[in-house]
Formats: sequence, structure tokens, C-alpha cells
Amino acid sequence: MIFIFEIVSINWKALISKLNIFFQTDFRIETDSFGEIKVSKDRYYGANTARSIINFDIGGDSERMPLPLIKAFGVLKRCAANVNKEFGLDDKIVDVITQVCDEIIEGKLNDEFPLVIWQTGSGTQTNMNINEVISNRGIEILGGALGSKNPVHPNDHVNMSQSSNDTFPTAMHIAVAVEINNRLLPSLKLLHSSLSHKVQDFQDIVKIGRTHTQDAVPLTLGQEFSGYVTQIEFGIERIKSTLPRLYHLAAGGTAVGTGLNTRIGFAEKIAEKIADYTGLPFVTAPNKFEALAAHDAMVEVHGALNVIACSLMKIANDIRFLASGPRCGLGEISLPENEAGSSIMPGKVNPTQCEAITMVAAQVIGNQTAVSVGASNGHFELNVFKPMIVKNVLQSTRLIADSCVSFSSNCVVGIQANTEKIDQSLNESLMLVTALNPHIGYDKACQIAKLAHCEGTSLKKAALKLQYLTESQFDEWVVAKNMIGPK
Amino acid sequence: MIFIFEIVSINWKALISKLNIFFQTDFRIETDSFGEIKVSKDRYYGANTARSIINFDIGGDSERMPLPLIKAFGVLKRCAANVNKEFGLDDKIVDVITQVCDEIIEGKLNDEFPLVIWQTGSGTQTNMNINEVISNRGIEILGGALGSKNPVHPNDHVNMSQSSNDTFPTAMHIAVAVEINNRLLPSLKLLHSSLSHKVQDFQDIVKIGRTHTQDAVPLTLGQEFSGYVTQIEFGIERIKSTLPRLYHLAAGGTAVGTGLNTRIGFAEKIAEKIADYTGLPFVTAPNKFEALAAHDAMVEVHGALNVIACSLMKIANDIRFLASGPRCGLGEISLPENEAGSSIMPGKVNPTQCEAITMVAAQVIGNQTAVSVGASNGHFELNVFKPMIVKNVLQSTRLIADSCVSFSSNCVVGIQANTEKIDQSLNESLMLVTALNPHIGYDKACQIAKLAHCEGTSLKKAALKLQYLTESQFDEWVVAKNMIGPK
Amino acid sequence: MIFIFEIVSINWKALISKLNIFFQTDFRIETDSFGEIKVSKDRYYGANTARSIINFDIGGDSERMPLPLIKAFGVLKRCAANVNKEFGLDDKIVDVITQVCDEIIEGKLNDEFPLVIWQTGSGTQTNMNINEVISNRGIEILGGALGSKNPVHPNDHVNMSQSSNDTFPTAMHIAVAVEINNRLLPSLKLLHSSLSHKVQDFQDIVKIGRTHTQDAVPLTLGQEFSGYVTQIEFGIERIKSTLPRLYHLAAGGTAVGTGLNTRIGFAEKIAEKIADYTGLPFVTAPNKFEALAAHDAMVEVHGALNVIACSLMKIANDIRFLASGPRCGLGEISLPENEAGSSIMPGKVNPTQCEAITMVAAQVIGNQTAVSVGASNGHFELNVFKPMIVKNVLQSTRLIADSCVSFSSNCVVGIQANTEKIDQSLNESLMLVTALNPHIGYDKACQIAKLAHCEGTSLKKAALKLQYLTESQFDEWVVAKNMIGPK
Amino acid sequence: MIFIFEIVSINWKALISKLNIFFQTDFRIETDSFGEIKVSKDRYYGANTARSIINFDIGGDSERMPLPLIKAFGVLKRCAANVNKEFGLDDKIVDVITQVCDEIIEGKLNDEFPLVIWQTGSGTQTNMNINEVISNRGIEILGGALGSKNPVHPNDHVNMSQSSNDTFPTAMHIAVAVEINNRLLPSLKLLHSSLSHKVQDFQDIVKIGRTHTQDAVPLTLGQEFSGYVTQIEFGIERIKSTLPRLYHLAAGGTAVGTGLNTRIGFAEKIAEKIADYTGLPFVTAPNKFEALAAHDAMVEVHGALNVIACSLMKIANDIRFLASGPRCGLGEISLPENEAGSSIMPGKVNPTQCEAITMVAAQVIGNQTAVSVGASNGHFELNVFKPMIVKNVLQSTRLIADSCVSFSSNCVVGIQANTEKIDQSLNESLMLVTALNPHIGYDKACQIAKLAHCEGTSLKKAALKLQYLTESQFDEWVVAKNMIGPK
Repeated sequence: MIFIFEIVSINWKALISKLNIFFQTDFRIETDSFGEIKVSKDRYYGANTARSIINFDIGGDSERMPLPLIKAFGVLKRCAANVNKEFGLDDKIVDVITQVCDEIIEGKLNDEFPLVIWQTGSGTQTNMNINEVISNRGIEILGGALGSKNPVHPNDHVNMSQSSNDTFPTAMHIAVAVEINNRLLPSLKLLHSSLSHKVQDFQDIVKIGRTHTQDAVPLTLGQEFSGYVTQIEFGIERIKSTLPRLYHLAAGGTAVGTGLNTRIGFAEKIAEKIADYTGLPFVTAPNKFEALAAHDAMVEVHGALNVIACSLMKIANDIRFLASGPRCGLGEISLPENEAGSSIMPGKVNPTQCEAITMVAAQVIGNQTAVSVGASNGHFELNVFKPMIVKNVLQSTRLIADSCVSFSSNCVVGIQANTEKIDQSLNESLMLVTALNPHIGYDKACQIAKLAHCEGTSLKKAALKLQYLTESQFDEWVVAKNMIGPK
Repeated sequence: MIFIFEIVSINWKALISKLNIFFQTDFRIETDSFGEIKVSKDRYYGANTARSIINFDIGGDSERMPLPLIKAFGVLKRCAANVNKEFGLDDKIVDVITQVCDEIIEGKLNDEFPLVIWQTGSGTQTNMNINEVISNRGIEILGGALGSKNPVHPNDHVNMSQSSNDTFPTAMHIAVAVEINNRLLPSLKLLHSSLSHKVQDFQDIVKIGRTHTQDAVPLTLGQEFSGYVTQIEFGIERIKSTLPRLYHLAAGGTAVGTGLNTRIGFAEKIAEKIADYTGLPFVTAPNKFEALAAHDAMVEVHGALNVIACSLMKIANDIRFLASGPRCGLGEISLPENEAGSSIMPGKVNPTQCEAITMVAAQVIGNQTAVSVGASNGHFELNVFKPMIVKNVLQSTRLIADSCVSFSSNCVVGIQANTEKIDQSLNESLMLVTALNPHIGYDKACQIAKLAHCEGTSLKKAALKLQYLTESQFDEWVVAKNMIGPK
Repeated sequence: MIFIFEIVSINWKALISKLNIFFQTDFRIETDSFGEIKVSKDRYYGANTARSIINFDIGGDSERMPLPLIKAFGVLKRCAANVNKEFGLDDKIVDVITQVCDEIIEGKLNDEFPLVIWQTGSGTQTNMNINEVISNRGIEILGGALGSKNPVHPNDHVNMSQSSNDTFPTAMHIAVAVEINNRLLPSLKLLHSSLSHKVQDFQDIVKIGRTHTQDAVPLTLGQEFSGYVTQIEFGIERIKSTLPRLYHLAAGGTAVGTGLNTRIGFAEKIAEKIADYTGLPFVTAPNKFEALAAHDAMVEVHGALNVIACSLMKIANDIRFLASGPRCGLGEISLPENEAGSSIMPGKVNPTQCEAITMVAAQVIGNQTAVSVGASNGHFELNVFKPMIVKNVLQSTRLIADSCVSFSSNCVVGIQANTEKIDQSLNESLMLVTALNPHIGYDKACQIAKLAHCEGTSLKKAALKLQYLTESQFDEWVVAKNMIGPK
Repeated sequence: MIFIFEIVSINWKALISKLNIFFQTDFRIETDSFGEIKVSKDRYYGANTARSIINFDIGGDSERMPLPLIKAFGVLKRCAANVNKEFGLDDKIVDVITQVCDEIIEGKLNDEFPLVIWQTGSGTQTNMNINEVISNRGIEILGGALGSKNPVHPNDHVNMSQSSNDTFPTAMHIAVAVEINNRLLPSLKLLHSSLSHKVQDFQDIVKIGRTHTQDAVPLTLGQEFSGYVTQIEFGIERIKSTLPRLYHLAAGGTAVGTGLNTRIGFAEKIAEKIADYTGLPFVTAPNKFEALAAHDAMVEVHGALNVIACSLMKIANDIRFLASGPRCGLGEISLPENEAGSSIMPGKVNPTQCEAITMVAAQVIGNQTAVSVGASNGHFELNVFKPMIVKNVLQSTRLIADSCVSFSSNCVVGIQANTEKIDQSLNESLMLVTALNPHIGYDKACQIAKLAHCEGTSLKKAALKLQYLTESQFDEWVVAKNMIGPK
């Protein structure tokens, strides 16, 4: 019986942190409005960050604020400094802020952002974390003393014309827009492309259709895959149709949306600067009160992700069922064999890429609920579920993007049609009887199908036995490849 | 181009109602604290109900407050009157209230409860609707004038020692507990029983197993169905394990949970009276503040319904896939043919009972979200999502109950095994190779399976070709019916 | 102890139905591919409908297929007949089908559609129900015998060039598009308009802002409401941005999407005919396989409804909290008093319209989950969660539309500002100190605020005591109405 | 314009991995049934793990399989080895497996488990990852060559009598049961205790109640908090009522639940061994088919977590609204001030602990949907959403546990009542009028309340003006502290 099964002293980790901070020797003293606090000497972050680490010991390292958001903050602070330059911020300060932001964007300072999602719902502490890191790293570059707030002050310079209340939603929109444009859309296009190739490859393979999981009339395997292609194509359209409102930036709204303590023109200028820097058509939000108090744009974007999740679940389910077997399933297609499927059953190969992507789909459908709950619970001038909301949107975006690439590269491109099995099923099917409707009517066709079913015989034999048509008529009328389109 | 496609004058219906009330001649005048209002002469309901009809014109008739809740109110008011008798309420009044409540419980007055779910979140207007109907119908019985509140006063007599705030949650618990005990549990037991019969019927049918939708090692069809039986068995246990907290009644808490304007002992007595009447072990809620301000018990009960929904989705999916075909699917079982499956494909029969019950499952999973959102949004001394919450719990209960009966009677009892098809799949399967692991090792077994797969041949042929064992060894070791349990 | 508390003989109702049908005298015999079945003489529906009533006894009358869907089927069948006329369908038949469809659209035959949502997942039985009603009512008009299928055949004429598989999704899209255009968008516009009026009314009322539910810097009450207006404005945009894919019609795809048994051009012509008739820009779906097998368009539309639900929850929460009181809450606004609020607390008035609309919001968030689960579970050529999906989308549409009208008419238009209370709060607030940042710096401003807070005094007194500025400076700098925008 | 904004070469990372593996010099060759693969020399994991890293490049490091699951696998493999000893596994092998499992349980080998959640849905690759690490680390201890599978074979020894199909669900149950018992329940008890202390502290503080967010009749602040205490108390009961089914272990079911290739008694023995080791009452699952094919037990447990999430949302919302202010809110309680609340508003303090825990609640409500979707989508003998399901259950468990500790320690314990503000609100309230009902009737009481409301005066003044009672009667009857219970 060892340590994980002992009742954990619940506040142990936070206690250790506190002890570390009080007893460590390699520290400097930082101050905030709550007084002094010790911070590790080698850290750029300061008092507010240190306090948050202690106050929010929730979930551990895997629950840290997502890096795309940190990078988006880098972009925002960089652009803010350069707009503030126009309003009088010292050139030297602007330059050093710019330099540090570039380091953040490049990922060089990732370890400086230890705060978790489960902190204040405005993300204030992460805004302060960013401000502190830029301040202290800037001070270091300029030869000052860490923690002195001089010559680069975290509030007066780095946060100039800003509030957590407008910076955090601005960073949310930047992060999500960048991830969607740079990660999600290319991934969806890759999947679209690989599925489209299959439509080409499979365009002449006539197979039995299935509705209600039951045998139905024929279509081509290419037609079947064309449905998947269309789902992804529309998925891309859906995402794009949500972007106009995602490109609205809250920056310039400051504390409650009024723009208090900013200058006229700041909001427009910073949106333009961010648009220039990212190459994405950001604009200033037409109403800053909405931009702080609600996150409808996040719910809307996630709504489109949710549709894609539903599409992917459907497509991957189809593919694994069509590939079921190899001997005792539908077996119409074969998937690439990427790894051993079983630790006990020799030679087993499984549709593992389908499984990964359907698990992603389930997660995204769940995240949709989480985002909706968070977004619906804003109060007055500020929604305080911001970190949770953006985390879910970023996670869904990333998981869909990555799993589409994986699914495309490791599964779709290698799908092969088992034409022998496909032909066999097609020929045995009873639903080709539908082709007889225009010739002998629904009711007689029905009798043929039922007789064949009961006697386990072929449609043709049943048709001839019932004497509703001649053999040559049957051969002329019941031709699967003539059943795959209107006349 | 006709009327449904014209832009509707949006408040049309409410306007009509108002006009009707102002211009109708067959009315009486009722009063509430907001003044006079006309009510149809032939209605027992009064001013508060009439006002609510006008103020909440949302969703139409199919969104009316569920009848099981109305009946539960009948039970509650009946029991309240009889407890109040002990505290001085006049016998004659008590008797007539009892009589009217019996009419409500028997469903004779259903048309008197026209209010929709989408009203005040405390359900106050429905409590008042009940009070008014009991009052006026009681007055009628006793020969008084409708609307006179004399000799049966809706507040002073019918609502005595009560508040909407404690009656509505009390009725919620009664309604759900009754529906679970009288409708849901018997239905689940019926499904459990019909599935159990199949376990018996199918206990000797060895078939191929499927994991990841791919061929795996064998089991019996009875074993496969035993999993479903266990899911339903545990579903029943799950429901039962939530009941202790469902049996808590808020009655006696009145306005905010303090019990203001009630007498000491009222809470305990009314719970006892309701328990006697219904035969269910209701008790007074240990904490009335929780009972009014939160509906965790509803979320808990629905959580169990949600598990059952997941079980039913799984079971019905399996059954329709196992029954897929008749020629081009797995075809291991056949389902009863209950109706024509297609308006275009003659002779098509579909697993329609599976479809109805999986749609129900999807709805219940959605209702879980609705209930959670409502329950999480209570404020201070009262949760005001009560009607929405109880409607979802009652709907999920009813839909699961009814669909289990339908699924059981119209599908499960008639399932038949297609032993020929089952044997064929079993014999063709490559996964029987697993039986060779203990004899020749995983790696050699693997080679046999892969060779058979590549060459499209049988395991035995591949095994002999690779010379890893003799034919008699193969015949001795690879026997499906010896693979269905530990040794 | 009476009947509702007895264990119900579970199949009682279905049994009664069966008995009724076998023993009733007022019946006619109808036949389908399953043989003969008795149908009430006075009913237009036929065998398939009668069978479905017996086979799917799930949920009761309130779970019937929604009427907007039935009407949409009327539109579809009407347009199909008129396109089929071009392909040779007899004029007389076309005319009578047209006439009956008009009756359906006008709601004259509502009672002929008794089937519940919880039937086959393709909605086949509802398609057949429609076909039967049109056939028999048409036969009646033409003087034939009900049930004779002559001269108007349900399959050969009414269902000509159609399958349940393409008609049901076509009706889904028509119904939802009509409800959105005719019911939802006007309702949202009404709410938008009534909120906009309040923005005008309240534009000069400076009040304290609140972030994290805590006092923050000021804004105007008009600005606060402008956030709500923007939410609704964007909600309308969101709905509209989903419409392009909702206007895709599956008609012409028939059984699996190939268009088997239709004529080239049918798909385009029927979409055009429906567009003409409804005045909405419907087009034929670019890919029919997607249109039958997936319902991503429904998930997308509901995604926009879900955003609106989140918006409404936020707005209504704000309004009820701002109106909290009358004595012990925030009390900044007053809501219209529409009904008595309590059966025990005299004079209590509650924000009941806020409660109705937030309950609707919770339901819609739940429906989103249900729709996603259903849409993600399509298999092969057909999604069989169609009735459940469309029911949820239609319910959400209707509930949002109706509750927006009710909320707007019965609450928003009557909101009044309590300027006295607003001024009092504003003057007492400590957060006006933010205006001092540019003059004396964040740190000194902080000390002032903390001192005022600790001593329970005013900002000015604290500022003067700390001697950071003069009284005249304070009076010049700390002016709430100068804090509501950038400089 | 820098690198994060370039279109990422989508498969870049996987490509790098592949290149690394092909060109690196510090590698050894491992083999699996797919052939050879290079693995870093210093890694204990082998071919299957290396292949999975390449094949499932989804989500990055923060999406790794949760450590509690890895530790649970350590427990399982340890116990399996010791049971296998009884069935003939060599003592030396058993000892070294035991030793390595202890290292895994202690967290010493955490870096050896790099696989992400988004892999095969059976978790097979994680089972193999564990087998490989135990094998190679065991080989190292015994002086063999890494990758040689000798003398400790990953399949034949470490995985003896097991399959991924039964080990993964076994580890799921162990991990969740341990986290619930060791982390969640103590945390809930801590919160229960800290809230209970407040009930004591606040038991004599009479305050105004609020229903519908509006003023209502009084209760004590202690009574209000007692509702929260009850919610947590019942939450603990709810969790406990789900444990019986969580204690079922799948071990012994092997590939499809039959127990193929195990020995009779293995299932019971391993459950007993695991129970002994963990001190938790695990038993062998009564039906192994259910235990592999469904994860209803996970949905059930998460259902209880979901209820707790709803409770926490309610409690934290109440607390932040009661603490709203400091000047312009309800202000009845004060929360501890833990950090600066605003980067722009000096002196602002926010209810940040409420925000963290309500964000957790929203996430858990979302996770409930994800778990339900995954659990409902199992097929045949195996549910393949296992890693996604267990990740969500473990995340919800951890987040609730950690946030309860944080909320308790950093917020609840420091809550203080602002008695002055509480008294002021109480005295101004109009709802004390309810106390007059028994004396002068509901209608007259109503008039008094309305008059006081309209004239902005006190109840007493209004009462006297209306001459319904004398001043001394008023003073005797309207006493808040007499209104907090039944008479």
C-alpha cells in the first residue's frame, strides 16, 4: 500500500509552493497592490503571476492556458505598443516591447506562462502575467533590475490603453482566428482533397446502397464518397461564414467597453495594426459592450466546429463499417494497416484512425455544451468564463485539425475498394427489384422481392417463377449500372 | 401563395385572446391583485390562469404543463387539505377539496389546465391554476357562485400552509416518482425479461465476435445478449439508487424554506400523508432551503435516465447492425417485420423499432443538458427553471418507458437467429487463430492469419502451408465452441 | 388509492387500439404490403398510418409530428404533382392533389396526421400518412371509394418521382426555412426594435458598470442596452448566414440519392416550383447523397439558434438582476408588473418574462445536444434520426420566436429606469477612482480606493485625507459623465 | 509576418519524427508484427509505442493519456503478475514486473508514456506501451538487452491472461475509483466542513430572502448556507451511490469478454488482489460482455459529477451575488481579497474563486455530453471511445476536487457577514408584510405592500395610513426574527 493510495494532504502542493517561496534563497521581492511576494530570481513573471500560482492550484500542468492564446497576447501587446507610440509612448520602450513580444510569439518564453485556465474568469491574471514577463524581460534587455518596473512598467507601458477586460477577448479572437486559418482550414482542405481523390478512383464501382442499415438500391462507391466530400466542403463554408464576427476585436473597450482612458482612434488603429501583422481582416468591434460582456462569436464558431464533428463522426463510422471484416463484415473497402490491432488476437488490424477521429468528434460535441454554458452565464459588463471558453474552442479547433490530417494521411489516402466483395453483394441484393416498378408496378415487384427473400433464391428466379416477366425482360430491366441516376 | 407564408402578425394569437376576453358575452368577472379580468363562464380556472394565458403565448398546446404534474398537484392538494383539517380547516371544505382532487387525479378536469411550461420559472401560475380550479369546482359542488372564492377560497383554503415555492417542487417529486415507479420500472423490467429470454434461446449459438467492428474471437449469441441484459439490469439499479433523494418533499417550506405561516409538524405530516396515499416512501426533505433553491435531485434522476439512454442506443445499434441485410449485411439475426419499409423499394423492411428507441436516446441525452443548465442557474432561495426541468425529466421518463415497451413487444420478442449465416461467418473467420497462441505462440499464429488473409484462403490451409502444425492438431486446437470461456 | 397508482398494464393502450380496430363496425379495410387492416370509416389516412399508430405507441399526443412539417409536406406534394404534370401525370389527378394540399396547408386536415415523432427514423410513415390522406381525400372529391387507391394512388401518383428518403428531408428544410423566415426573424426584429428604443431612452443615464458582479467604472444605461441590441442584431446575421445550405432541397434524390426512377430535370424543377410557391430561394441540393445521409444543415441552423439562446440567457439574466428589489436588490430598472407573483407573499411581483425566456434558452441549449447526437449517428445512405432532429429544430425556432415576442411585448417595452437609485449607486461607487490614473498614477489611486473602502467613506474624503490632490482637482477629474468614452 | 502565421506544412511534426527515427544514431531496432522500427536507445517503450507516436500526432503533449490511468495500469499489471504466479509464471519474472510496476505507480517512469488520448479507441496502444516499458525496464534490471523481449516478454509475460480489451476498462475503473476516493471525496468533505462552519457562524443573522431575484420573506444567513451544505452532503451521497458498479472490474474477460486464454478463477483472483492492494472493494464484473462493450458505469459516475457541477455553479453564483459591491451591489457578505482584480481599476477585488469553480462547473457539464456521446456509440463486443471517456471522467473528478479545495481554502473560510448592510436591507423590505396574512388577510396585506412600494415609504407607515392595524399591533406582528420558521 503506497503513497498514491494514502489520503492526500489536500493542499500539499499549494503548501509546498508557499513554503518554496518563503524559504527559497534564489528569489527577488516583487510587489503588487497586496504587498510583497517572493518570486524565483530566474523568472520574468512577477507578483501577480506568483500569487495566482498559489491561489489557483487546480488541475495541474496539463490545464495551462493554451499557447496559441499566449502567442496572440504577444501579437496584441506588440501592436498596442506600436499604436501607443503614435500617442506618445517612448520609442525605446516600444522597441523593447516589440522585441520581447517577438520572443513570445516565437515560443521562446513558453515556460514563463505557468497559469492555469481555472483562474479568474476574466483572464486578468494571464494579462498581468504577460505584462510582467514583457516588463521584466524588457528591463533585462535594457540593463535594469528585474521587478523594478523600470524602465518598462507592466501597467503604465505594456498595458497602456488596455484593460484585461478588452485584451483577453481580443487575444481570444486573434488566437482562434489564427488557428482556424493556419491550422484548421488547411487540414479540412487536405481531407477534402484526399476524399475527392477517392471519388475519382471509385466513380465506376457500382455497389449496393444501404438505408436503415438495410440493403437498398445501388449507387457507385464514388457517389457514396461524394457525400463525404460535400460534408467537408460545406464544413469549410460553415467555418468561413462565422469569421466576420470572429474578426471583431474588443481592443479599445478597456474596462467596461466605454474606452475609458484610451484615446479616440485607438480602437480602430489597433485593429488595423493587428490585421496588418497577422494578414487577417480584423476590424474593431462595432459594439464594445457586446464584445466584453458576451462571447457569442465563440459560440458561433464552435457551432460550426460542432457541425464538422457531426460530419466526421458520420464519415468515420461509415468507413469503419464498410471496412468491417475482413471475413465477417461488409468488407467493401480495405483500410491501411498501420499497427498491430490486438495484444491477444494475432493478425488483427483495426480502423484506429476512425476511432481517434470519432473520439475527437465526441469531445467536440461535449465542448459545444461547455462553451454554451459558459457563454450564457455572462453578467452585466463582463463574461467571466473567458479562459474556459477559449480553451474549449482552441482545443476543438486543434483536435479537429490534427485528426483530419492524421485521418487523411494514415487512412483515407490508402483506402482501397474490394471490388470482388462489392460485386458479390450487389448481385445478391434483392433491392434491384426497384428497377421493375415502372414496368410491372410496385405491388408485383414487392411479391418478387418477398418470394426471393423467403426462398433464399435470386430475384430473377423468383420473378420467373411468378411469371411476371420474361428472362430477357429481366436481364434488360434489372441492370445495376443503369440504376445510379435519373433517366 | 396562402396564409402560412404571409408574415404573421406576430401577436395575433394573444390579441385574439385578449379580444375574446373583452368582447365575449359568456364570461364572468374574476379578480386578482391586478384587478378584474373576464373568464369564460364554463371554466373553473380563474383570473391568474386567464392572465397567464395572455402573458405567455409561447409554443402552443403541445407545450402545456405535463399531466403527470397536474395529477401530482391533485395528490398534494388532497393531502394538504387533510393535514390542514388537523390544524383546523373546516371539514366540509376538506371534503370538497378531496372530491375535486380526485377528479383531477382521474383526469376529468384536464382541459382546465391550459398553461404552458414557458411561464414563470417557479410554476406559480400553475399552482394558482390548480387552486382556482379546486376552488371553483368546489364552490360549484357546494352550490356557490364561480369566482366568488366562497365558500372555498383558492388561497386561504386550497393553498393553506403552502406556497408555490414549496408546492411546485413537491409536485415535481411526486410526479417523477410516480412515473418512475408505475411506468418506467415496469417497462425496463419488461425489456429486461424479453432480452433475458433471448439469452436463453441463443445460449448455444456460437458466433464470431466483433471488436472495433472487425472480426474477433468467438462468443455465443446468448453471451452477446447477456451484455444487454446486464445493461438494463444495472439501469434499473441506477434508477433505484437515485430514489432516496427523490422521495424528499419540499412541502412545509413555504416561501423561502423557513416554513413561515405553517404549523410545526405540518411538513412531516404532509409527507406522511402523501406517502400513504401513493404507497411510495416519501419523507419531508431534511433541508427545505436546498429543496426550493436547487433541483439536484432532478439532475441526479435524469443522470440515471441518461445512462439508460446510452445503453439503449448501444443495444439498438447492435441489433440493427446484426440484423443488417437481408443479403448484403451481417445478417446474423432477423427482426420482426412490422410495416412496409419503403414507399419506393418494394419488399424493404427496416429496423424501425431500433430507430424509434435510438431517437428517444438522442433526445434524452439532449434533455440531460437542458436539465443541467436549468438546475445550475438557480439563484438565492429559489430555482426558477422548475417547469422546464420537470418537463424534461417527465418527457425522458415517458419516452424511455414507452419506447422500451414498444421495442420489447414489437422487436425483441421476435428476434430470430440466422444460424446458417452465423455458422458461415464463424467458419470463415481468421480470428480463431487466437486459439493457437498457447500452442505455437503469438508470432507464428500471426503469420498464419496474415497468410490466410493475403491469399484469401482458410486458416487451416495457411497453417498447413506454413507447416507450424499438423492437420489433426489444427482440428483439435481450433474449435470455436471451446473458445467461449476460460479453461 | 386509485388508478394512476396501479401498475399500468403496459401495452394497454396499444391493445385497445388493436381491439378497436378489430371489433369496430365503422371501418373500412385498407391494405398494404403486410395485408389488410381496418381503418375508421371517417379517416382519410390508411393502412400504413393505422399500422404505425399501433406499432409506435410512444409519448402520447403531445409528441405528434410537428404541424409545420405536415404543412411543408403539403407544399412539397403540391409542387411535385405540378412538376409531374410536365412529365405526364394526368391533369385531373394533379388538380385534385393540388386542392387537397391546399387543405393541408390551411390546416383543415390536421387531425389526419396522428403519427408521433418516435417512429421510423426516416419518417417514412409520415410520408405515407401524407400520401394516404391526399389519395383518399382526393378520391372522395372525385367521388371514388376511400381505400380503393383509385383514381388517386398514394404511391404511383402522390409519391410519384419521390421516396420517403428525399421527401422527408425536403419537408424538413421547407418547414424550418418557413418558420425561420415567417416566425423567427420577425420576432427577433421585434425584440431588436424594442431593445433599440430603450437604448435611445436611456442614452443619457450614466450608471455604475459592473464586472465580475462587482462595481466597476461607469457607462450609460443606453450603452449597456446597446450590447443587448448588438447581440440580437448579430443573432439575426448568424441565422441568415446559415440559410444558404438550408435552402438546399433533397427532392429528386429518391431512395439513396441517385435519383433512380426520376426523370432528368425533376430535381431542378421541383426546387424551382417550391421556391416560387414559398417565395424563398430554394435550390436543388448540389449533392443528394449528402442531403439524405447527413443533416449537417440542421445542426448548423440549430447552432445559430443555440447562440441566440446564449444571448437571451445573458440579456434576461441582466435585466432581472438590474431589476432586482424592489428594496433589497440593485433596483436600477423596473419591469412591468403583469401578474401576481406569489400565492403567499402579498404584493410580490416577479420578472416572469425573464424566467420564461431563460427556460427557453436552457431548452434550446439542450436541444442542440440532441440534434448533434442524432446528426452524428447517420449510417451509409440515410440518416435515420430525421423526425427527432426536425422536431428539435422546429421547437427551438418556435420557442425562441414566441418567447422573444412575449419578452419584448410584456417586458422590454415597459422597462423603466430608476434614476434616483442609479444616481445613488453611481455616487457611492469607489471605481470612479479610475479617472485619477492619468493624473496621480495607478498606485496612489489604489490607495485612495482602499482607504475609502476600509473607512466606509467617500472617494473624495479619502483622496483629500491622503493629500494626493486638491478638492477642486478631484471635482474636475472625477466626473462620471466624462468617463463613458475615449478622449 | 513571422512563422506562426505561415501556412504550416501540416504533417511537419510527424515527418520530423519519422526522419528522426530513420536518421538518428542513438537508436535500437524494435520489431512488432509490422516489421522493424527504430526507437531511441534511452527509451523503455518499444515498437508499438513508437508507431503510435507517428500515427497519432493529434493535440500535442497536453493531450497525453492521464497519469492516474497509467498508475492504475501499474497496479493492474502488478496484480496480474502476482496472480499469474499462482498459475505458473516464473517467480523471477513476477518479482521484476512487481518492481517496475512500483516505479510506474511512484511516477518515476512518467516520461515513458508519451501516447495521446486520441489513438485507438480501445486504448490498445497504451496497454502495449505499458507492456513494453515493463518488459524493457525489467530486462534492464535483469541485465538483458532492451528490445530483446527476453527474459521479460511484453505479451507472453506482462500481458499474460490479459487483452487490451479487458485491461483498459479495468484500469479505467481503478483510476477513477482511486481518484474519487483519494482526491474527490476528501475535497468535497473539506468544502462541506468549511460551509458548515459558516452555518454555525451565521445562524443568528436574520436577512431578507430572495426568490426570483426579488425581495422575499426573511431567513437567516445560516439557513441560506445550510442549503449549500445539504447540496454538498447529497453530492457525496450521490457519488457513493454510483460506486458499487464502478468497483466492477473487467479483468478476466480478455478479448471479447469470454475469458479466452485465461484460467478459471483468474478473474476473481485478480479483482481480489487489486482490492487488497488498493484498499477499495473491487470485485470481478458479473458480466464481462457488458464490461467491455459498454461504459455505463463511467456515464453513471459522471452523472453524479454533473450534479455536483450544478450544485457548485449555484453555490458560487449565490456567493458572488451576495458579495456583489462593495458599494453598488447586494453586499451582504465579504469575500477574502486574494489578488488585485483589475489592471486598470485601482483597488478592485473580484470573486475570482467563484469564477474558477463556475468555469469548472461549465466544463463538467460539457464533459457529461462528451462522455454520453462516447458511451452511446459502442458497437458489438467493444466500446472504442475508452480513452476519451476516461479522460473526461478523470478531468472532471480532478477539476472538481481541486477547485473545491481552492474555493474552500481561498474563499469560503474567509467569508464574513456584513451585518450592517444585511440589517438595512431587511428593514427596508416590503415582504415582511407576509407576517400580516394570518391577522388581516392576504388582500389587505397586499394593499399595504403596494402602497408602501408606490409611495416609497415603509410598511408600517403604509399600514397605519390604511388603518388596517394599530402601531403596536404592527410592532408585535411584523418581527423578522419570528418569521424564520413554522409556529
